Parts: sequence; C-alpha cells; structure tokens
Amino acid sequence: MKFISNRGQIMPSSPIRRLVPFADQAVEKGRHVYHLNIGQPDILTPDTFLNPIKNLDMPVIAYGPSAGFTSLRKKLVDYYARFDITVDYSEILVTTGGSEAIIFTLMSICDAGDEIIIPEPFYTNYNGFAVEAGVNVVPITSYIENDFQLPPIESIKEKITPKTRAILICNPNNPTGYVYSKAELKALSKIVQEHNLFLLSDEVYREFTYDGLKHTTAMHLKNIEDRVIMLDSVSKRYSACGARIGMIVSKNKEIIETALKFGMARLCPPSIEQVGVEAGVDTPREYFEEVNKEYTERRNTMVRLLREIPGVVAPNPKGAFYMIVRLPVKDSNDFAQWLLTDFHVNNETVLIAPADGFYSRPGLGKDEVRIAYVLNVNDIKKAMHILSEALKVYPGRI
Amino acid sequence: MKFISNRGQIMPSSPIRRLVPFADQAVEKGRHVYHLNIGQPDILTPDTFLNPIKNLDMPVIAYGPSAGFTSLRKKLVDYYARFDITVDYSEILVTTGGSEAIIFTLMSICDAGDEIIIPEPFYTNYNGFAVEAGVNVVPITSYIENDFQLPPIESIKEKITPKTRAILICNPNNPTGYVYSKAELKALSKIVQEHNLFLLSDEVYREFTYDGLKHTTAMHLKNIEDRVIMLDSVSKRYSACGARIGMIVSKNKEIIETALKFGMARLCPPSIEQVGVEAGVDTPREYFEEVNKEYTERRNTMVRLLREIPGVVAPNPKGAFYMIVRLPVKDSNDFAQWLLTDFHVNNETVLIAPADGFYSRPGLGKDEVRIAYVLNVNDIKKAMHILSEALKVYPGRI
Repeated sequence: MKFISNRGQIMPSSPIRRLVPFADQAVEKGRHVYHLNIGQPDILTPDTFLNPIKNLDMPVIAYGPSAGFTSLRKKLVDYYARFDITVDYSEILVTTGGSEAIIFTLMSICDAGDEIIIPEPFYTNYNGFAVEAGVNVVPITSYIENDFQLPPIESIKEKITPKTRAILICNPNNPTGYVYSKAELKALSKIVQEHNLFLLSDEVYREFTYDGLKHTTAMHLKNIEDRVIMLDSVSKRYSACGARIGMIVSKNKEIIETALKFGMARLCPPSIEQVGVEAGVDTPREYFEEVNKEYTERRNTMVRLLREIPGVVAPNPKGAFYMIVRLPVKDSNDFAQWLLTDFHVNNETVLIAPADGFYSRPGLGKDEVRIAYVLNVNDIKKAMHILSEALKVYPGRI
Repeated sequence: MKFISNRGQIMPSSPIRRLVPFADQAVEKGRHVYHLNIGQPDILTPDTFLNPIKNLDMPVIAYGPSAGFTSLRKKLVDYYARFDITVDYSEILVTTGGSEAIIFTLMSICDAGDEIIIPEPFYTNYNGFAVEAGVNVVPITSYIENDFQLPPIESIKEKITPKTRAILICNPNNPTGYVYSKAELKALSKIVQEHNLFLLSDEVYREFTYDGLKHTTAMHLKNIEDRVIMLDSVSKRYSACGARIGMIVSKNKEIIETALKFGMARLCPPSIEQVGVEAGVDTPREYFEEVNKEYTERRNTMVRLLREIPGVVAPNPKGAFYMIVRLPVKDSNDFAQWLLTDFHVNNETVLIAPADGFYSRPGLGKDEVRIAYVLNVNDIKKAMHILSEALKVYPGRI
C-alpha cells in the first residue's frame, strides 16, 4: 500500500529544526547549547499583551469571526497608521500566524503549477507552503558579496513566464537581514505593473531596522495598490511567536474576500491570543526603542566577533535579527551537526542553521549558515568564542 | 488581469456563516436572533481549562514544538486511555484546531485529483479542505428516512476507483447527530482493508452521546490499525471552540511523521491555548455528566416541539448537538433568509443553516435545514415557537 502522497513525500523538513534532535542529545549529555538556529527571541513579551490574558473575561472561549475580531482589526488600523500605512479594517484579515497569511495568499492567487519568484536565500518555510499550494518557487539568487541586495532587475525579468503570478519579498529580510531600498522597491513595482503580477511583501520585521535606516513598505508603492499583498505577524513585534496571530493586508478587495473563504473553512484564528494582540497595539514606544537598542548591540557584537575569525565572511545586516555568514567549511550541514555531536568548550556548544535549506537552487549555501542573534550580548560572546574555537579544529575546514 | 486563482474561485463560502450578515441586519433593526446555525455552545468553558491561562507563567510567548508541547501530548495519552484508546504520545500530533488536522491528513495521503468517499450530508467545511488539497469528494447519500445511518456497503464499494484514498466519517455525526454502530464500523473496516484505503474518523463529539448509547471509536477496529487516522478537537469537549487546538492520532508512524512536516512549516499550534488544554484534561467527570444531561434535555425538547409542527420530519439524534430536519418548504435557503428579513414574533426570530451546503450532490437538502441545539431549554422553546409560527405564514411553504 502506498501510504504517503507525493506531496507528503516532497514536503521538506524544516532545516531550522532538522538538527534539534542532535541538540537535545547534547543537552542530555549535560551540555549547554546556545540556540542561534531559530528566530525565537529571549525578549520578554510586553505586559500590555500579557495582562488582558491574565485578566481574561471570556466565560466561553467561543469562535470569533473568520476574519478576526472586528475590534482587533480596527485597532490594527491605528497600528498601521503609525507607519503611514492607511488602511480600512475591511482591508485587514487576521490569520493564524504569518504562516497562514502566506498559505491563504498563495491559495488565493495561484493554481497548481503556477510560479512565484523569490530572491534567495529566503525564509525556508516558503518552500513548504509552496508544496502545499502546488506552486513552483522560481529563485533569483542574491549574493553575500553585496550584502544580499536585490538581484539585477533584468535577471528577475528573465524568469517571468505566463505561469508567473507574483514576486515575493521579505523586507527586512529573513534570513539575510537585508533591508530593501526605496529604489529597489520602485524597480519591483515597475515589473509587477508591466507583467501583471502581484507583489507579496512579508514585512513581519518592520520594527527591526538599525543604524537609523527607515523601512519602506510595499503599501506605499504607487500605481500597484491592487497588486500589493502585505503579509504580517505579531510573532516578532511582541516577542509572541507562540501566539500564532498574523495578517493579510491588501487594498484589493477580491483578495481579501477570497482569503476569507479559506478563513471560513478553518472557522477562526485563536480567540485568546487575539485579546493579547489587540491590547498589545498599545505597547509604549519605549518598549520598541529598548528592544531596538538591545538588538543593535547584539548585532554589533556578533558582526565584530565573526569578522575576527579567520576565513569568515559576515555582512553587517541592517534589519531583522539574522545574518547569513560564510564559513571556511566544505559542508555547513556536517559542521553544524559536528558542533552538537563532537565539540564543546567547557561543556557548551552552539546550534546554527545550515544555509542550504534557505536556497532553492541545489548546491548553494553549502558553506554558509544562518545565525539568529536572539541571545543576550554575554551569551553571544560565549557562542562566538565556541564557534571560533570549533573552526580551529573542525576536520572539514577548508 | 486575472486576480483570483481557480481554486480561490471554486472555494465555497461556508453555508453556516453565509446568512450571518442578514442576522446582523435583523439585530440592527432591534430584533433578537436565536442562533441555531452554528455549533457554538453556550456551555461555560471549565475552570480547569481557564485557570492556568489566568495564572499564565510564560514571560515569553515562545514557539512550542511543531508537534505540540510534549507535556500536552503525554497528558492526552491519559485522556484517550479513559476511552480505552491505547496510544503512545508519539502517535499524537497537536494541530491548530480540528480543521488543520483534516487539512494535514488530506495533504499527507492525497495528491491533486485523488478521491475521498464521505457519507452525505457531511460537515460542510470538508468541502473547503478538499478544495485546498485538490481532492475530489465522492459523496454517498444517507437519508433522513432512516436517521442518516450508513448507506448500504455495496453503494460505497461502487464508488471506489483507483483514485480513492480514504473513507471519511464523522462519528458522532455533524450535521445529522447519527452515531455509527459497531456493525457499521466493522463493515467499513472490511472495505478499507480489502481496497487498501484509509479510514479517517472525525470523533470530536466523542463526549456527546445520549440515551446511554456508547460511542465506538475507529481506533478499536482490528486489522486496520495502520489505516485508521482519528481526527480530534477540544472545541466541543471543553466548550472552547476559539482555542483552536485539535489532534491527529494514528498508529501509522509514517502518517504522523508526514503530517509533522506540514506542522513544521507552520511552526507550532497556539502556545497559550495548549496550556489550557493540558490542564483541561483533568476536568472532573461531573462536568461532562452535567453537560450531557443538559444536552439530552435540549434535544428532547427540540425533537418534541419540532414533531408537533405539521409537515416537519425530525429524527431523534443520538449524538453531537445537531439535527437535520425536513421542513415543508420549497427552498430552505429562501426560508432561512426570509426568517431574518421578513419575519419575527415579538421582535424575535431564528437563524438556521440551510442543509444544501451539507450535501455534495446538487439538488439535495433543498427542503432540509441543520439545527444546532446549543441554546438553553427556554430559548429552544421560544425558537421553536417562532419556527412554528413562521411556517404558518411563509409564502414558499408547500
């Protein structure tokens, strides 16, 4: 009997989570593991978010509306207004995490066999969502040598076929930390307009830009208002990754109506977490300023220490809290696993994500890893020391 | 520009929620609307579930494991043991609601174009999930005349093709309230075995059987242990529909591993609600006994009053909290809408779900509605009085 569908067989395992069992084994051996593999910040979830949950006045945890609580959608209008994004609450659909925002969007605009262009390296789970929707990801490669900026517009145009439905960007970028410039976005908007495509803009790291750099939202692009679909999530904003609340935002009413049909089938997003998010919108500005300061220091520390290690290439990312780093190794998968199984400094080691899983084209990213700077500065120093010592003795070093 | 995919265009709107805007308009006119359209009970969520959420000790609402918190999965082993369902925690995958359990299961076992046989009328959102997975629903019709029991086995066999991957049942059944007998399940297990199919068994109403009838779980069927996938949810069990926590349970490790890959892509189910569910497993037996007594009384009241209305055919359902009722009307869609727009008794009216949305074959269910007995006995009496008066004057009556 054939148990598993082809779709189930080709569905990728998450490269971020693939090595977790090895980390668990290291912990069982009594080792401490610094987790730099996943975008799970140690930043405290703000009280504005947590307090209404602790004071929950909901005698029946009932279904909410499929589009999310109307009061939450109206509150989100205020949130976006702070970034000069003018939307009506009817243009916001609340989803179960940013993940569902992406799936619903792909399902709404693509049929099986359609294509989505994505600059690579990209957020690895886009691959999984594409498999679920039967969509083919067409990568355009960006390079560490120029900080992973947008590949030349001509190289994007070359990839457009009659099957192309959209260009998907993540800005600020996971996994590279790159923040797209106004000029890059403008260039994208032109292709989108010329070729009748959608621009899907994953902006969940909106709050995380450094060195005074300002984030440009796709919602500000002129002439393609009905072709922009912004994907969002509160996971990183309020350090509430487990809350699973995201959003689809678009001026295109057909898109919102169609996504809502997928939303109706799954009934509603989680009710209790929506209460937290609604109140979370009132989180004071100081919270974000402090968080931003903390991440700036973490990034500075990490980049400085990485650049001190011989053979390491580390860009200085301007956003999110990740970076793709080139290591002097033949196979970063082997290296990452070896760190957990064969190496430690004073019984401590690190978990990093091999970068090949963030590329779509086979063979790319073999000497790269993604590092999330989600630990405090002290832990980052220790983790970088371990990495440095490891690269001195790792047998697969080049 | 073609904005919407074919998939998005054929995605059905929920028939349960389709008339809600008319109900909202009635409310705006100052009318009270008794909601009998949706399985949203008024039963209080137990304190065992709510208290740990109010006392939440989770300074960072972090991602949990993709399969659900291990502590929750282990606790669920105890829960199932009470029903003599013996499973290891590795055989349980926690999902974001029963909805996701169904989608992940369809994605794991079906490719686009594959077929699933479902007795109709069936839970209407199966249709939506089938569209998402590109799966064709093949209905076998059950009839109100014999309480919607399983159609003859021969009529099921006739529908099996090389594309058939599974038979999906909901037991106790939404929308009919029918509880499948041991003999019916045994007959199904034989077909499943002979034709190399899966048996998907949606058992979210396990706690809701009446008149001393015992529910038979598909997990007890012999010789097809690796072909049974039980779909579950805490929505009804703890009156926590908005919590969005469900489960896939199967002895087939390949299925759990494959479903987990879909789970990894969406990272994790909601963390806060999982805390409630884990504690909720310790809800005392008395809670369920009281709930069961209450629903028995509601059902008795509703069936008695419905049978007093001339021209109405109402079976006496043994499980869940729904019934499909035949009304003396030409078009139950028109009638249900008319109730909201054109009728009231002392400024009160009712919202019921037209049944055609629960059938896959066109033309069926036109004179039927689904009624959920999720209101207290007093409200049920008032709602049935309104229905009775309405049928006396409704112009489309036959």
